[in-house]
Amino acid sequence: MTDQTNRFLEIAAPGIANLKPYVPGKPISELERELGITDSVKLASNENPLGCSENAKAAMQGELSDSARYPDGGGFELSKALAAKHGVDAGCITLGNGSNDVLDMIARVFLSPGYESLFSQHAFAVYPISSQAVGVTLKIAPAVNYGHDLEAMLNMVGEKTRVVWVANPNNPTGTWLNGEELENFIAAIPQNVIVVVDEAYIEYVDEEDYPDASQWLSKYPNLIVTRTFSKAYGLASLRVGYGLSHPDIADLLNRVRQPFNVNSMAQAAALAALEDQDFIQSSIDMNRAGMEQLVTGFAEMGLSYIPSVGNFVTVDVGRPVEEVGQALLREGCIGRPVANYGLPNHLRITVGLEEENARFLSAMKKVLDK
Amino acid sequence: MTDQTNRFLEIAAPGIANLKPYVPGKPISELERELGITDSVKLASNENPLGCSENAKAAMQGELSDSARYPDGGGFELSKALAAKHGVDAGCITLGNGSNDVLDMIARVFLSPGYESLFSQHAFAVYPISSQAVGVTLKIAPAVNYGHDLEAMLNMVGEKTRVVWVANPNNPTGTWLNGEELENFIAAIPQNVIVVVDEAYIEYVDEEDYPDASQWLSKYPNLIVTRTFSKAYGLASLRVGYGLSHPDIADLLNRVRQPFNVNSMAQAAALAALEDQDFIQSSIDMNRAGMEQLVTGFAEMGLSYIPSVGNFVTVDVGRPVEEVGQALLREGCIGRPVANYGLPNHLRITVGLEEENARFLSAMKKVLDK
Repeated sequence: MTDQTNRFLEIAAPGIANLKPYVPGKPISELERELGITDSVKLASNENPLGCSENAKAAMQGELSDSARYPDGGGFELSKALAAKHGVDAGCITLGNGSNDVLDMIARVFLSPGYESLFSQHAFAVYPISSQAVGVTLKIAPAVNYGHDLEAMLNMVGEKTRVVWVANPNNPTGTWLNGEELENFIAAIPQNVIVVVDEAYIEYVDEEDYPDASQWLSKYPNLIVTRTFSKAYGLASLRVGYGLSHPDIADLLNRVRQPFNVNSMAQAAALAALEDQDFIQSSIDMNRAGMEQLVTGFAEMGLSYIPSVGNFVTVDVGRPVEEVGQALLREGCIGRPVANYGLPNHLRITVGLEEENARFLSAMKKVLDK
Repeated sequence: MTDQTNRFLEIAAPGIANLKPYVPGKPISELERELGITDSVKLASNENPLGCSENAKAAMQGELSDSARYPDGGGFELSKALAAKHGVDAGCITLGNGSNDVLDMIARVFLSPGYESLFSQHAFAVYPISSQAVGVTLKIAPAVNYGHDLEAMLNMVGEKTRVVWVANPNNPTGTWLNGEELENFIAAIPQNVIVVVDEAYIEYVDEEDYPDASQWLSKYPNLIVTRTFSKAYGLASLRVGYGLSHPDIADLLNRVRQPFNVNSMAQAAALAALEDQDFIQSSIDMNRAGMEQLVTGFAEMGLSYIPSVGNFVTVDVGRPVEEVGQALLREGCIGRPVANYGLPNHLRITVGLEEENARFLSAMKKVLDK
């Protein structure tokens, strides 16, 4: 429960009283100021250590002179490019100020008090936050091996269930679902229940049976797939994500979308970034090598970790992670303790550049005395 | 009423069915493509024709290399600077992806089905849209002389009223309220009703009795003042606005705020723009001269207009404005017909550069055959 002494709580909408906002990682500049250091390594927010495509930077540069003009409220060019990429109509696209914004729109459109929002234990924090903000009942399915237990989730779908959220792969665990199990699950969900498949990390996944759920849009009108430019595309600072869905769903989402939610820089950068798939391939290659480096290091220290197909890996540090995280901070190494995800001894570490990974592993050895 | 054939409407939250999203002006590029022209003049969106401060551009330039990093979710530096500007604690600030975002957060926190949202006829379109999106009852007070009738509004405040919205000056009419009448109004509103004073155009107002409502925050804890960087600061493309309020209210608004709602470019640009008040003064000077030029032109054509203290003026074209707007478009002149604001014969024209105003007036003469 949060502070009930707020004098305006009594006139706030249902859900606000118990709403704890997402706690983002601190920016490097702020942390360095606090710690009195200057050369920290931040592997905390699943950011792309290679930055972004040079094309995207050039596109942003080109927008600098037009700052006083409102963005294109319809996101015409970007929606058209995304529709082409996915082989759907532009009417299937909902642009978001990051995919967080799309997730929030889904909650606002389909969830209201008296209904249920269903997701898995250890699932991404925005599902409960966006759900709580609209005063809906939260249903949390137990995880299996840190990942989604689709059978348990299906058994929890009831008459009041309006939205089911599945991250594939999941953040912060890096677990994933194969095409057969995920499609069977979606097919078994009643058509008046929305299924969200959050594919924020899809570009990094290199598994034969891993599905691109956007291929199923025409079969399952109650499916919404979300994507982001914040991870492999390296545009987290700009905030661009999108939803792919049946046009009827996109119509409803766009009704609550703020007309200028994606700013001009972000639209231009995303459009240019889409065209540079070489950059994405470099990011994937870097990630594969870095993941190998990290998990080899964990094995050498005798630490177990959750096998991940994303650009991060979550490791069991064998003791309360908050103190380990603090000790690492003093070494200038910033990871993400995930105690708030029901993983009290786990630290999530983003795959960084080779030297960043090495420094992080070395600090872990020191802090854990391995 | 909107299209009821949407198959997912039956599972949508209250309010979504009748929600018509804000219709933004088309971007110049799209309009020019449609019209087959290349040298249009857009005086449609109350944008600053001088662009933005060079400081802001330099700050954006400096952010280009950091695109892969998430923004500072707390907006530490910008909030601190805004708090200093207004002489309040940083805990009084709520940052928004444009002030639209802050208005939306206010609706999400304080409005829910069964309660009432109160605003004036001809008021800014986002008040009804954000209210409708949360399924609240809309109460619309009749205007007087195109502006707010505060007595009529006060008489409509009832037990179910949760939020009262006042724009000062108002968009799209440019009308304004003096300090005495506005403060008396706020003082008369019950303390469990939120009063929003939207000051998007405050920088342009040059009237002795015009109030800065942020001065009253310590006296009226139920007051929220909103500001934007989209108008005089010339950063509409970037999306930055903010709310000023009692910290208890800011706490609730920040609970529904998306953690990275204001992107890195926007935070950096706004921070730098704040420090360049010379640019703001140039914009005000340019606006004063341009307003004089426009209203002199209207007088010469025998057109009446609503006297405005903003960076726009709304003129009665004496016939249905949609056809006039279309005819002006064919001349390459883009204004904003405001029939949707209950002003079927009025066109809102943003004050532009001298040559833009001249060309617009000349096109109006031709189209109206004056």
